[in-house]
Amino acid sequence: MIVQIQENARREQVNNLVSWLESFDLRVRVSEELAGTTLGLVGDTGRLDIDQMRSMDIVEGVEAVREPYISASRKFRSSDTVIRTNGVSIGGGGLTMIAGPCSIESEEQILSIALKVKDAGADMLRGGAFKPRSSPYSFQGLGAEGLKMLLAAKKAAGLPVVSEIMDLSQLPLFEEVDVIQVGARNMQNFEILRELGKIRRPILLKRGLSSTFEELLLSAEYIMAGGNEEVILCERGIRTFETHTRNTLDISAVPILKQLSHLPVIVDPSHASGIARLVRPLALAAAAVGADGLMIEVHNAPELALCDGPQSITPEAYEEVARAARHVFGNVRACGEV
Amino acid sequence: MIVQIQENARREQVNNLVSWLESFDLRVRVSEELAGTTLGLVGDTGRLDIDQMRSMDIVEGVEAVREPYISASRKFRSSDTVIRTNGVSIGGGGLTMIAGPCSIESEEQILSIALKVKDAGADMLRGGAFKPRSSPYSFQGLGAEGLKMLLAAKKAAGLPVVSEIMDLSQLPLFEEVDVIQVGARNMQNFEILRELGKIRRPILLKRGLSSTFEELLLSAEYIMAGGNEEVILCERGIRTFETHTRNTLDISAVPILKQLSHLPVIVDPSHASGIARLVRPLALAAAAVGADGLMIEVHNAPELALCDGPQSITPEAYEEVARAARHVFGNVRACGEV
Amino acid sequence: MIVQIQENARREQVNNLVSWLESFDLRVRVSEELAGTTLGLVGDTGRLDIDQMRSMDIVEGVEAVREPYISASRKFRSSDTVIRTNGVSIGGGGLTMIAGPCSIESEEQILSIALKVKDAGADMLRGGAFKPRSSPYSFQGLGAEGLKMLLAAKKAAGLPVVSEIMDLSQLPLFEEVDVIQVGARNMQNFEILRELGKIRRPILLKRGLSSTFEELLLSAEYIMAGGNEEVILCERGIRTFETHTRNTLDISAVPILKQLSHLPVIVDPSHASGIARLVRPLALAAAAVGADGLMIEVHNAPELALCDGPQSITPEAYEEVARAARHVFGNVRACGEV
Amino acid sequence: MIVQIQENARREQVNNLVSWLESFDLRVRVSEELAGTTLGLVGDTGRLDIDQMRSMDIVEGVEAVREPYISASRKFRSSDTVIRTNGVSIGGGGLTMIAGPCSIESEEQILSIALKVKDAGADMLRGGAFKPRSSPYSFQGLGAEGLKMLLAAKKAAGLPVVSEIMDLSQLPLFEEVDVIQVGARNMQNFEILRELGKIRRPILLKRGLSSTFEELLLSAEYIMAGGNEEVILCERGIRTFETHTRNTLDISAVPILKQLSHLPVIVDPSHASGIARLVRPLALAAAAVGADGLMIEVHNAPELALCDGPQSITPEAYEEVARAARHVFGNVRACGEV
Repeated sequence: MIVQIQENARREQVNNLVSWLESFDLRVRVSEELAGTTLGLVGDTGRLDIDQMRSMDIVEGVEAVREPYISASRKFRSSDTVIRTNGVSIGGGGLTMIAGPCSIESEEQILSIALKVKDAGADMLRGGAFKPRSSPYSFQGLGAEGLKMLLAAKKAAGLPVVSEIMDLSQLPLFEEVDVIQVGARNMQNFEILRELGKIRRPILLKRGLSSTFEELLLSAEYIMAGGNEEVILCERGIRTFETHTRNTLDISAVPILKQLSHLPVIVDPSHASGIARLVRPLALAAAAVGADGLMIEVHNAPELALCDGPQSITPEAYEEVARAARHVFGNVRACGEV
Repeated sequence: MIVQIQENARREQVNNLVSWLESFDLRVRVSEELAGTTLGLVGDTGRLDIDQMRSMDIVEGVEAVREPYISASRKFRSSDTVIRTNGVSIGGGGLTMIAGPCSIESEEQILSIALKVKDAGADMLRGGAFKPRSSPYSFQGLGAEGLKMLLAAKKAAGLPVVSEIMDLSQLPLFEEVDVIQVGARNMQNFEILRELGKIRRPILLKRGLSSTFEELLLSAEYIMAGGNEEVILCERGIRTFETHTRNTLDISAVPILKQLSHLPVIVDPSHASGIARLVRPLALAAAAVGADGLMIEVHNAPELALCDGPQSITPEAYEEVARAARHVFGNVRACGEV
Repeated sequence: MIVQIQENARREQVNNLVSWLESFDLRVRVSEELAGTTLGLVGDTGRLDIDQMRSMDIVEGVEAVREPYISASRKFRSSDTVIRTNGVSIGGGGLTMIAGPCSIESEEQILSIALKVKDAGADMLRGGAFKPRSSPYSFQGLGAEGLKMLLAAKKAAGLPVVSEIMDLSQLPLFEEVDVIQVGARNMQNFEILRELGKIRRPILLKRGLSSTFEELLLSAEYIMAGGNEEVILCERGIRTFETHTRNTLDISAVPILKQLSHLPVIVDPSHASGIARLVRPLALAAAAVGADGLMIEVHNAPELALCDGPQSITPEAYEEVARAARHVFGNVRACGEV
Repeated sequence: MIVQIQENARREQVNNLVSWLESFDLRVRVSEELAGTTLGLVGDTGRLDIDQMRSMDIVEGVEAVREPYISASRKFRSSDTVIRTNGVSIGGGGLTMIAGPCSIESEEQILSIALKVKDAGADMLRGGAFKPRSSPYSFQGLGAEGLKMLLAAKKAAGLPVVSEIMDLSQLPLFEEVDVIQVGARNMQNFEILRELGKIRRPILLKRGLSSTFEELLLSAEYIMAGGNEEVILCERGIRTFETHTRNTLDISAVPILKQLSHLPVIVDPSHASGIARLVRPLALAAAAVGADGLMIEVHNAPELALCDGPQSITPEAYEEVARAARHVFGNVRACGEV
């Protein structure tokens, strides 16, 4: 349930209302925007007398919400969430570019790619140290060592970094990682989500292979319910009957998620298709559809990559894709929104 | 199997080779492009002696083809097929805009929409007379009467028209329909496909709800095997687990189908989402990804439409979408292809 | 909307009520069972005064129905429909066995298989003359000639036959075919469904590859709305992300369809899996889950079959499967229903 | 790669061969069955000289294996794995019945259900203490307290217990839990799988909502690669386009997994359908198709359950289902295997 507060309400009055609502065993979340203050109520609201509430001096309106999430809902917060980390912002009306290799393979590799994508205008560096692999016999990433190499590259290139966490025990190693990624296979690893709600660092949450929009937003809600409101949603393809592509990019996810939620939404065209030559057209489609950012796998020598080579593009190709994507994005913005 | 012919081969030599190949019970299709002549062999090629063929004077190369389609394959014809009808071309490097109501409801309705989308720069008018509806109790279209109204609007607005056929018995009524549509539910109605192969009119073939790219191209092959090579492929969303949208637009279909085939590929953002407010972002995504055209449902009063109202946009909204889509398309073209 | 009629209502009174209802532009379907008479109303029932109707002498109850189908609904007819053809019944509490080759290949082939499956206790012979094939270059069936061979085998073996129709133009050839099959790809070929509603022959309607239960029942409704109430539903596997099997048998379809509808439901384990060695376990599962029948592909020499060899079993294997399936079916019946 | 060892090979010779193979950086797994000793080689086998190996005295045969799993493969171990825990066996030719509530709600609740399902012949008690819920605001289980109640019920009823782990930090609490369940959402939580490979307790591994058979077996391989070979596979429904059921039970999973692997396979008809009245028919189908066990949600008052009430059945209904399932299972066994 959403309660809109009168503009002229005093802080004390709002606090009193919150306390009163909490006495019904409800959790109350408060959103303060330019447009006004809104309360989001979670729990069994059945015992509330809606008419009584509507008649309160400081209440402007009360709305029942069908969706089971509140913090992530556009109804609770009408203005776009902008996430800022280390000088980079995601969701503020620009197209944030995240680039880097699927997995960190050596100090030279990650450093060289970092400098090249930096040159090509990337805003952020990605690189996996802990890799979720279907087979126990595949390369599993360099682990803690890899993370150190990533942080060295971060320093050298001056780029904030994003890397995937696979288990809570790894959390201490992520101290200097600017954005922590929760992968598609862990989107409903609720223990991880809950713990990440307790820290204050942006979380990049990838949509599960067969997760609905509602499930994705509920997973974001797990993080936000803990107090960490900086969640970036990422569409990376879903599993369908079509096997030509590794996954099927659900491009509609962007406008739908942005309608349902105030959180920024980015697209990963590399995992979505699994095919390097599709990265460019899908990146342009994502830029045109209104994504807040792109995450692209870049490798110095895709044919030798220890992981996901077939979907990686070279730094040179990345430069061209990034330029074209920004160009399309700018043009769509210029056309205005309807 | 694909046989590339030497540039300097004489027509007579090629004919002899074709006759010889046909003596093996193979069907031989001939493609003559600027790049040279290519033969596509269909049937049991196991009895051919490849080495013998490679050693022939007029043969430049022989390639086994994994795909089960030949006529529709990019390997058989390397240059894009351009379909021309009544002054409009599809596939020649532009973005062809097809607009109109889901179903024809009255003479005034179709005429008024026709004139408005014409004004908004549409290249072609769509309108359904025979409607495939899940329920026998839903509005089934105006049938032959509706088709007459469409043809009157065609004349008045000076726009070529596209309309869906549902059964071969309706074919005589389609005499003046410029492009005949085969709907998603009929994509594997092989009897219709076969018959449409015998006429000489462009066919707009929509991808089935759960059809793979290969199945779509095989259905195109049914038409082309009969000699009708003017097939337009249309991505209109596939069925997945996600129920927020009516279907899931598979935006990757465009670059993949254009890689596998020389046929033009258009996108229908209206059916793909089933939600009017998604038409614009999905149309822009399709324009950015490289589609050859867009088919958009436009209705004068979507809230009163007898069919598919929730996914229809007004002529005014259409005008803006079309302008933005062409703008994006032009910009992507200007960025060049990689 | 469903209207239950009082037990003691006179025929004349019922007729008057029907006429009155039809004056509201509604279609009225009448079901007369031992349990009483029921009217099914289709169309815009919004103008009816429900309270007025409930107060009528001959009306026992009025129920709004959420489902968009009426004739096929269990709410309209509570007792199981039993379909009888040529001495065989489907849906009457037994397990009807339908066996035969995917496609008729020669007179000897179909006759020899017919005699063998007859010996093995089959109730009905299947055999395809018109084959829907993804590729135009695959064997398309023997057509009219094949149908003649099937009818000769019918006579010789004394088994009623089922065969698939692909286009309405073929209908005259099906005069002596006991049960006409509509294949999965034609489940939403509404023109065929409508025409089959006008004849009086049982129709075996296969579920489409990605059709919901509701869509299947609506397709049955197309046939029944025309007056042909003898529809047999067939689950034959749906398309999912799993590619190990050709399709995924949705075994839950049987109890669900039997709850939603009074029509008999059979299972085709051959198409559902596409793997011969799965036919036995899936047939047993179908018998245990409560299917009214099984349709199994049997070929004298599966490895030489012109179509679907990998999923066909030999007459010898069929005999064992049929015996085991009947055994399981009998045991489940003996356990009673809950 | 699979290496079959001659029957008369001495232990020492085998050890020498294993050491030699390990010198190529391969992991070697040894299976000793009545049928003989088999080595499973994992890693880059490209440098091995197959002909040299085939010519070795103690080698009977060498087979390349297409599947990326070895320990879980039927090719590596031909005889069924039988898992024994606390007097109960799974996979040894019987139908093991596991029953209990979705979540433990109180000491009385779990104890009362335990005693009732014990009376009804259940072999094992299930009960969730840590519940994976889509929403952070849903009941999350009683946690450590719940687990204590389960262990008390275990003692009182004399039934081994199975319960789900959600995070490695919970592992110490599972000391006396006989079988540890990894839920569908954690099927690719590789950190948990790896750790569970280090203990010596049976693991019940549920198939992910959109996981292929190969992915399920690779997740089993994660556990087995660590040395814990006691993995029970569980089919519990997959996500498809059909929304009438919560998931779609993939009944074919049982015969396919049992062909690909030697591990026992059980079925959870409660989660597969999400509908209590489907539990019985699906349980019978699973028994007929050859499952090694059934896991069924039983609740004393399903309408009051804090979790998954709609799919739970009463102890009374369970008793009847269990009896019927065993009856069907016995009959299928009696029919023999083909």
